[in-house]
Formats: sequence, C-alpha cells, structure tokens
Amino acid sequence: MRSLNEHIREVRAFAPASVTNVSCGFDVLGFALNRPGDEVVVRRKKQGPMCISRVVGDANSIPTEVERNTSGAAILAFVKTMGLDDHFEIEIHKKMAIGTGLGSSAASAVAGVLAVNQFLERPLSKSELLPFALEGEKITSGGDVHADNVAAALLGGFIAVRSVQPVDIIPLHYPSQLACTVVHPHIELPTAEMRRILREQISLHDAVRQWGNIAAFVAGLQNEDLEVMRRSLNDVIIEPVRGKVIPGYEQAKEAALKNGALGSGISGSGPSIFALCDSQEVAQQAGQAMQRVFDELQIQSDVYVSQVNARGAEILEVKRKDERLKMKDER
Amino acid sequence: MRSLNEHIREVRAFAPASVTNVSCGFDVLGFALNRPGDEVVVRRKKQGPMCISRVVGDANSIPTEVERNTSGAAILAFVKTMGLDDHFEIEIHKKMAIGTGLGSSAASAVAGVLAVNQFLERPLSKSELLPFALEGEKITSGGDVHADNVAAALLGGFIAVRSVQPVDIIPLHYPSQLACTVVHPHIELPTAEMRRILREQISLHDAVRQWGNIAAFVAGLQNEDLEVMRRSLNDVIIEPVRGKVIPGYEQAKEAALKNGALGSGISGSGPSIFALCDSQEVAQQAGQAMQRVFDELQIQSDVYVSQVNARGAEILEVKRKDERLKMKDER
Repeated sequence: MRSLNEHIREVRAFAPASVTNVSCGFDVLGFALNRPGDEVVVRRKKQGPMCISRVVGDANSIPTEVERNTSGAAILAFVKTMGLDDHFEIEIHKKMAIGTGLGSSAASAVAGVLAVNQFLERPLSKSELLPFALEGEKITSGGDVHADNVAAALLGGFIAVRSVQPVDIIPLHYPSQLACTVVHPHIELPTAEMRRILREQISLHDAVRQWGNIAAFVAGLQNEDLEVMRRSLNDVIIEPVRGKVIPGYEQAKEAALKNGALGSGISGSGPSIFALCDSQEVAQQAGQAMQRVFDELQIQSDVYVSQVNARGAEILEVKRKDERLKMKDER
Repeated sequence: MRSLNEHIREVRAFAPASVTNVSCGFDVLGFALNRPGDEVVVRRKKQGPMCISRVVGDANSIPTEVERNTSGAAILAFVKTMGLDDHFEIEIHKKMAIGTGLGSSAASAVAGVLAVNQFLERPLSKSELLPFALEGEKITSGGDVHADNVAAALLGGFIAVRSVQPVDIIPLHYPSQLACTVVHPHIELPTAEMRRILREQISLHDAVRQWGNIAAFVAGLQNEDLEVMRRSLNDVIIEPVRGKVIPGYEQAKEAALKNGALGSGISGSGPSIFALCDSQEVAQQAGQAMQRVFDELQIQSDVYVSQVNARGAEILEVKRKDERLKMKDER
C-alpha cells in the first residue's frame, strides 16, 4: 500500500500516438510520435467513487463508464493495486480518433496511469506502470494483451515486445534523425475485423523471411544503418492481407517510397499508413505525396509529420492544493 | 575476367564450424566457432581438369567428384565465373564429421573458395566470395540455399541472414566474452530428414513469439545485455519438433542451463547441442554437464569449447613457386 501526496489536487498528463508493427515486426515493434497524442486530467475529489467527468474530442465514440473506458480501467487497476481510495475524477482530451491504427486507446490508458501515479508520495517508475496501462488496453482488444502501443506511448522511442506474458519490453537504440509521416485516411476499419482477416496459420517459409527482416531491422536501427533499415522494412505476412482492405494503400506506399521514405506500411491495424524517413524534410514530402493519393480517391485524410518521440508520456501540469487556496485569496 | 598470380603454387585455408538457428533464429542467425574447422589446400597443377586429390578425415562419407563435393563445386563456380583455367588440385582435411549440425559442408566450401581466391592477382573481398561458397553449400541441401553457416564460417562473428535471394548478410555486434560449448553426440540424423519433419505451416501466434525473441536477442547481442539474451534464447517452433528426435536432448539442455549457460539449443539441424555462455569457464562446466548426460545414456560424444570466432575463415599458408625452386637448388 502506498500513500498519497495530499498536497496534489490535479495532474495533467500527455501520452503520444504510436506506430506499431513497423512492417516486419507484427505485434512486437513500435515507436512513439511527438504528435498527435491524448491528454488525461486526473483530479482529486472529496468523496464518491471514481468517475469520468468529461470527454473532449471524439466524445461519442468512447464509453464513459470507468470500467469500460481504457483510461478509466487503467487508473482503476492502479488505484486498486496501490490500495488507494478511489476519489478521483477523470477528464479525457482525445486528440485523435479511435480505430485509426495510431494507438489511441493505448495513449489514453498511459496518460491516465501516468497522471494518477503522480499523486503518490513516491511515484512508480514508468516501467512499473506498464501492467496498469495494459489493463486499460485490454478493454479495446477484447482481452488479448498487445503491449506494443502501450509500451511505445509510455516509454517513448523504439521498443520491442519480447513477451507479453510476462511483459518484457526491450528499448531499442535508433538514429536520432529518424522522422515519420503518418497519413490517416478517413475510412472505418474496426480493429477486431482487421485481426479476424489474418490467417491463423502461416508458412514457415514466410515466417523465416519475416524474422530475417526483423533481425536485420533491429540491427540496422541499433547500428544507425539506414540502408539496412531500408532493405528490411518488408512485410510478407500481414500487409498482403490487410493492405487490400485499405483503398489506395499500395499507391500511397509507393508514393512514400518514391519520395525517399526508408519504408512504408500499415500503422497498427490501419487504416493509417506510416512512412519512416531519414529526415523531417523527406517525411514532409512523403506525407504530401501520400495525401495526394487519397485526395485523388476523394478520401479525406490527416497527415502528421513527427520525429520519433524519445520522451514518451509526460506530466504536463501538477496543480497543488495550496495553489487553489492562494488563488482563492487573490480573488 | 581476372588474372592469376603465377608465382603462387599452393594455398591452405581454414574455415570454422558454425552454430546456426541459435534457438530463436531458425535459418537466419549464426555464429562461428574457433574450433573445430576444416582445412582445404588448393594447388596449381600444370594441366588437366580440376580434381580432388586427397581427402583426410571422414574420407568415406564425402564425394570426391569435384561437381558433387561442396568444396569442389564452390571452387569450380569461382573458377568459371572468374574465367580462370581449371588446373587446380584440391586437398580436403575434414576436422569434423558431416551431418553434425556444425556446418561442416559450409566450412569446406568456404575454405576452398578462400584458398582459390588467393591465387588471383587481386583477390576478392570475403563478402564477394559468399555467392561461390553458397554454390558449394547447395550441393548438400538439395538445391535449397541456406546462407547461415556459410556466412558465419566466412565472415566470422555473429551474423543475421536478412535474405537469401538476393543474399543479404548483416554482421551483428556481440559481447566479446561470449563463449560457446558444443556437444556432438554420435547419433546419425540426416539433414534432409531433420528438415522434412518440420511443419510447413505454423501458427501466427507462435511466429509472433518467435519474432519477439529474435528482435530482443539481436538487441541484447548488440547492447551486450546478457540478461536480455538469456530471456530471448527460446524456440517455440523448431525445437519442440526436432528436440524429440535427439535422445537426451532435454536433459542435456537442462544441464547446460543449470550450469549457468545463457541459453542452449540445437545447433543447425542437430544432433549437436550448443550452449551459449558468458565466459569460457561457464562454457567448460556446461559442456562437462552435457557430456555426462550422454555418458549416462551410453552415447559417445565430443565436446568443443570455444569463444565466438571473430575472424572467420583464414589463409593459413601460401607457398610460392620460387620457394620450390629454392628448395630444389638446396638439394
């Protein structure tokens, strides 16, 4: 059992979007973006059980019952395990839609846990927060645990998920100049459906090609060898199935590669498409080229250009009780 | 077309044994040992087509026709591509049995190509020799190309095979203290049979576990993080099938782990078993423990303890024509 810092009234935390799978690393590779990202405010209240007091942005699409909300469920798991009382209210600021393939639910879960953790006298480390954020993420994935988005959003940088049971995350070194474009075409593809269409059995031959690519990609990242990264950003297993479901996918990918991207693929389970690049300029160009593809198909899209986010989730603001008192005095 | 250095009469080259698959990296990971290894002597002759003049050690088990011999076929491919005449004779010194899972055929192919390359006025680099050595290796694998043993034996160190068509080998950094024990129980397991028993289809779920492990293992190697390496030396796909065919396999592996090995598994397609360790002392202990298992089963075995071989294949001796002339004079 941990004790609360009674001086803290409110904490606002941010957790970034993340790109997972990264072509050759289905369910095991991920990295964080600088933007977009979700913000969660956790506020102390005098009494009554935990509640979600407000959802800003995409308000209609997410549940507001604590137990069914990814951020709420994650915070609840934390509060229970730490033996805290549950007098908290939660405000969720969604800055990205859910079901985009950018780890929106993971970002909300991570931001929530990071915020509530800050109320402790001695907050836990980020790695220690991982299991709680995963409890939140479980809500959206129907019980399956996928740690890639959560780990990337929480820790930042590039990560590999060695195992989910037990959770074992390996941070990976990467070239600092790496930048990424993500294009989110406004198409609805439910995550569960995108999982369902995958074959349960794959050929050993294809699996070997995939683990050759992932071994090389991790080596390329860590050695900052962009050419090795370029050669290994291939997916012979998932992309051939999911790519067909996303209109314009092949053309958008081709446009990114023609414009200098190291590699391009489906972000998470789509429909967002990422392009990993060796500079912000190339990422910008690749992004414009990809967006033109969707413009021509008359599909609206958002484009985000971002460096790899090395910091991961962050506390944006801590409000203390004495500040409110002070403010009251000033009034 | 390249020209020969007419002063060279004879070249002796060495290529080491290699451990491949390395638990989580079926067909894509490999590393070289210091010993055992094969030596190949290539000698210039006045006339007549290429021939294998002598095989020392394991002489009955390998073909002595140039085209059907891994070393011969590799040298032949080199000579043809370089546009050289074929007036060479080949002497093969097998220092390890074939069909042990230690890359014996790859070692002979690599040593042969390295030796004949030395006859050029301007020898090719090791990487440029890879395709020729692969031509030799093809002979034993029935046309399938497996580059893992050849690349490790030629280049030394730890390597990842990103792709075999085209061949793309990624050298991996690794902790310099790494040592390895290999136990070769005297059991016959034909390589082709060991491939045949593998399932052609595997579950996506298992494949994901495997690529989580391989991503982590490569990161662990490169970061010299022994604990990450320890956690990722798992094989959920090949070992469960092949392990059953090797008597004493489970006990030997357990003995290695109990004696401090980072990981243990089947070397190549077996029956040799490797144990990767963080020092020579641990490797020695693990090796003794594994050998005791086979002693109890009344199965003879050889044990090799070696650091990872950073140099790979090497030229041991170059004899020049003038040396012979000089010797004649002295007589």
